[in-house]
Order: sequence, then structure tokens, then C-alpha cells
Amino acid sequence: MKINDYVSLYETERKKINTILSGALKHRNPSSLYEPGSYILNSGGKRIRPLLVLLSAKAVGGKFSAAYNAAAAVEMLHNFTLVHDDIMDNADKRRGRLTLHKKYDNSTAILVGDSLLSIAYEYLLKDCNGNSKQVISAFTKGLIEVCEGQSLDTDFEDRKNVSLAEYLLMIKKKTAAMAEMCCKIGALLGGGTKEQVKALGNFGLNIGIAFQIQDDLLDISADEKKFGKTIGGDLVEGKKTFLFLEALEKSTGEDRKKLLKVIERKGIRRNQINSYKMIYDNLGVLDDARNEIKSYTKKAMKSINVLSEKNKQIFKWLADSLIHRTS
Amino acid sequence: MKINDYVSLYETERKKINTILSGALKHRNPSSLYEPGSYILNSGGKRIRPLLVLLSAKAVGGKFSAAYNAAAAVEMLHNFTLVHDDIMDNADKRRGRLTLHKKYDNSTAILVGDSLLSIAYEYLLKDCNGNSKQVISAFTKGLIEVCEGQSLDTDFEDRKNVSLAEYLLMIKKKTAAMAEMCCKIGALLGGGTKEQVKALGNFGLNIGIAFQIQDDLLDISADEKKFGKTIGGDLVEGKKTFLFLEALEKSTGEDRKKLLKVIERKGIRRNQINSYKMIYDNLGVLDDARNEIKSYTKKAMKSINVLSEKNKQIFKWLADSLIHRTS
Repeated sequence: MKINDYVSLYETERKKINTILSGALKHRNPSSLYEPGSYILNSGGKRIRPLLVLLSAKAVGGKFSAAYNAAAAVEMLHNFTLVHDDIMDNADKRRGRLTLHKKYDNSTAILVGDSLLSIAYEYLLKDCNGNSKQVISAFTKGLIEVCEGQSLDTDFEDRKNVSLAEYLLMIKKKTAAMAEMCCKIGALLGGGTKEQVKALGNFGLNIGIAFQIQDDLLDISADEKKFGKTIGGDLVEGKKTFLFLEALEKSTGEDRKKLLKVIERKGIRRNQINSYKMIYDNLGVLDDARNEIKSYTKKAMKSINVLSEKNKQIFKWLADSLIHRTS
Repeated sequence: MKINDYVSLYETERKKINTILSGALKHRNPSSLYEPGSYILNSGGKRIRPLLVLLSAKAVGGKFSAAYNAAAAVEMLHNFTLVHDDIMDNADKRRGRLTLHKKYDNSTAILVGDSLLSIAYEYLLKDCNGNSKQVISAFTKGLIEVCEGQSLDTDFEDRKNVSLAEYLLMIKKKTAAMAEMCCKIGALLGGGTKEQVKALGNFGLNIGIAFQIQDDLLDISADEKKFGKTIGGDLVEGKKTFLFLEALEKSTGEDRKKLLKVIERKGIRRNQINSYKMIYDNLGVLDDARNEIKSYTKKAMKSINVLSEKNKQIFKWLADSLIHRTS
């Protein structure tokens, strides 16, 4: 297959996932619960997690059709985390629309999150046959880690000293564990061997870490038009990203003083973004981030060496797309 | 077995459940997530839901030991609903202590609820063997209904006209579906037949409805010292309980006007409680509630006619205890 074929395969499968998701809450009552649920499920999104499920099922010799419900389930789980995280972060916008708790209220958003999670399990169960226990265990483990990761993330907001190692543990739990889980359940539902499940799980874990560092990098280096958000938002909010913590560990003198101010004051003003970007440039942390992304992507690709050359190609395309994305 | 034996069996098993629950979150990190989690899991409670799981396992010929983790799981699920409901209701106290969101904050409480639910699935999976899919499906169905029931309950707060039939649907989902689920998964884990699982599920469902109406009745008729809360709290808060809606459907003239005022003003003053209790007395709604409780309890007992006489006795004791409880 050529790159264009992968792109069209992705588009086709994304549409199928969207169709399942937009049908999932129809004909359910009460509407006070399921209308807001549909609002978030129909708000778009890349649907990368469902894609990981489907591709992993196919990579081990299974069919997409063995994993569509599971693919929808991981997207519901993802949306559950978005809805609850947005309440905690007091976020106003998500995917260009009002966040659920802003459009409705906090109580509705809490309950909609809970119900999305419950229906995620319902959908996952639809695809479970002989190996239900393994599939649901992997899903549950991913869920537990997401909660732990979110808790660490919240802790870090109030802490003055966070190490890069702690940051990596946090994104491993908050972001990468879910990608790992998606690949694992896809491989399990596709009938993969123990070795294949482990290999694809490691692919997901490493590509998930690369994805998150790329997210941090895009925030400061993206093309504003394509990015869709203002550049430097993480610095304005005082977020302890990979770039910020790397810069802090490398800096001395005046640079370090300026970086420590971001922590003390819990963020910077918009007109200070450029001067901080210069510090990042001088310290070379953008290149450090690019190198980390490459290194985790390499690890991800290495872990699926057990797959056939043909099956590896689509993961290679996926990894490349994630690294070269602009938003 | 005699009644004293049942009481001591309940006490023994309650302690075992408490031990599992207080160990469940130990040695997990981050403590910012699991310390508040332990705060709610160690705050006491009747542990009736775990008891339903254990007794149902035994009633079909299984052992308690086949279902301890599942018993802990349903209590975690119950605590997850308490933590999230308390945020939505803006409640200050729970089991005589500060609610979790008051002791910590809303974000912590949202996340602790989520994580209790995730660990509930982890514990449930520990007891799953051949029939994981059925067990987890029953658990998930119960969870979905609890969310729907909570949503209906919230809807009813703002609605002026709620019928008794709607109220019964709400408590079926919010309270009784979980009792049904507890009995079902206990019976499944104990190796029950399809008929036994269904029978015990119906026992749980009907006893759950009886339990909730009893809760409404206790609020206005309990001995204040034993009850531990002020009598008439539901009227003060303007809650649309079984008693209130039954009174509304039966009343005419001045009584009806006074009852409608409770809805309009979203509650009454403490010094009005007695005059409303008199309306309830005159309309005979306390007796109506007692009759409903008896009727649902009878249905519950009838549904387990398939069990042996010996096994029915402990459910009879349980049903009697729930009806004659004072708090």
C-alpha cells in the first residue's frame, strides 16, 4: 500500500467509528443524560485511539470487524477523560466548541462522564468472546493508569520542583498507557499471540510518549494557522511541559531565574512568550524534544519487529503522521 | 440457623469486607488520589450490597470465598456513586463525616470517584473465571442504570409534576438496579443456574425498591435518636419522595395547595415539618408506604421460591431486617 492508500483507509475507518459513536446513545433515556453525551461524542477528534485498536487487530491476522465496538469503546473512554478533565481544568473550549460543563453544568458533566465510561464497557463487552477477561483487564488497567496520571498532573500544577523523570512517568500514565491499552486489546481481539500482544502494547506505549512530547513541542513551535490555538499557551498557563522542565534542568544564571518565575507566578503574560521562546532556542530544548520524539518512535518501531514487513508499514506511516502532524 | 446466628454471620462478613476495602488502595500511588479514596472506603456503611453478593453466591451452592472480591467491588461502585452524587447535591456530611469534596475539593472528588470505579472493575475481574462476560455485563448494566437513575433524580428536582410511576422508575434505576446486580453477580459467581440467577436478581430488584421506600418513610417517621438525622429533612429539602408524591396524588383543597407550595418554594422551613406530617397522617400516606414496602418485600420473597427452604431463611431475615431497621 502507498501513503495515499493509508490516508484513505484512515478516513474510511474514521467515518465508520464516527457512525458507531453517533448511534451509541440514540434511543436511550433520559435525554438529560444522553443528549449532552452525544454532544461530546459528535464533536469530532482525530479518533487515533480507535485506529490503534483496529490496526492492531489486523496486524495479528484479525479483521477490523472483530474490533469496531472495542474501537468505539476506547474513544468513549477517551471522551470520558476529556469531560472530567475539562471540569478540573476549568476549560472553556474543546475542539472549537464550548466544553460540556460550560454548555450544561458541572453536575451534568460529571454524570455524562460516568455514563460514557459505563457505555464504553458495554461496547467493549460486545466484542469480547473467549478472552473477555484479558481484554477487560487490559482496558481496566489503562483506565486506572489514566486516573493516576491525571492525579499526578494536578499535583504537578501546585509543586515547585518536578523532575523530567516524574514528568515522563506522568505522561506515561496519562497518555501513553491508553495508547498501549488500545494496541493490546486490538491485538487480543484479533487473536494475537502473547508475544504479539506484548509487542503491540510496547508500540502503543512508546508512540504515546512520543505523541505527548510532540504535543508539548507543537504548542511552542507550530504554525499558528494550522495549529488552531495560540502559540505558547502552555507557558502562559505555567504548564510544566517536557520543554519547560528540560529548559529548567539545563539553565543557569538569568535564564534559570526567568524560568523559575514562571513557576512562582503560575504562568507568564502573552507579550513575554517570545523572550521565553528565545531561552528555549538558546538552550536547544526544541531539538532535545525532537530527539526524544525520534528516540521513542524508534523504540516503538523496534518493538513491532515481530510483525511481518507488510504489517509494519502501516504503523510506520502512523508513527510518521503523528510526528509530522501540525495540530 | 437462628436470628442471632444471622446477625453474627453479618457482623463477621462485614468485618471481612471492611478488611478487603481498607487494604484495596494501600501501596498504590499517587497518595493524592488514594488517600482520599481510602477516606471514603473506610468511612463505614452498612455494607448491604456486598452481603447481597455473598448470600447470593451461597444460596446457589457456591462459597463466600468465590465472591469476596466481587463483594468489595460492588461496595466500591456504591462509594463511587456517593462521592459523585455528593458533589452534585452539594452535600456537606456523609456517614457523620465531611463529604469528600468538602474535605478535599471538587476535582479530587471527581477523580477519586472515577478511580474507585476503575478499581471496582479490577476487583470484580479477580473473581471472574469461566463466566467473566456475564458477570461484567451484569455489573456494567447496573452501573449504566445507576447513572440514568441519578440523572432522572436530578431532573425531578427541577420539575413541577412528577408522577408516582416516574418516581418508581427512578428508584428502580438509582437504587434497585444495583441490588439486582449484586444478587445476579453473586449467583453467577456461585455457579447458579440461569433460573437461579434470574430469581435472585428479582429478589434484589424488589427488595431494593422496598428499601428505598423504607428510606423515604424513615425520614418522616423514625425515632430521631436512632435515626441519626433530623426528622423531616426530605420535606425541608423539597424532595419528591414516595410519601410526598403519594400525598400529592391523594390530596385536594387546602392540603393540595400546601403540598404544591413545597414544590414552588423548593422546600419548607423546619418549623413547618409537623403541619406537613399531619397532612401525611390525614391522607394515610405513611400506611400506604408501609403497604408498598410489604408488597415489594413479598414479591422479593416470592421470586426466590426456587431456592431451598434453608437458603430462603437468610433472605427472609435480611428482608425483615431491612424493613424493621431504624436508620
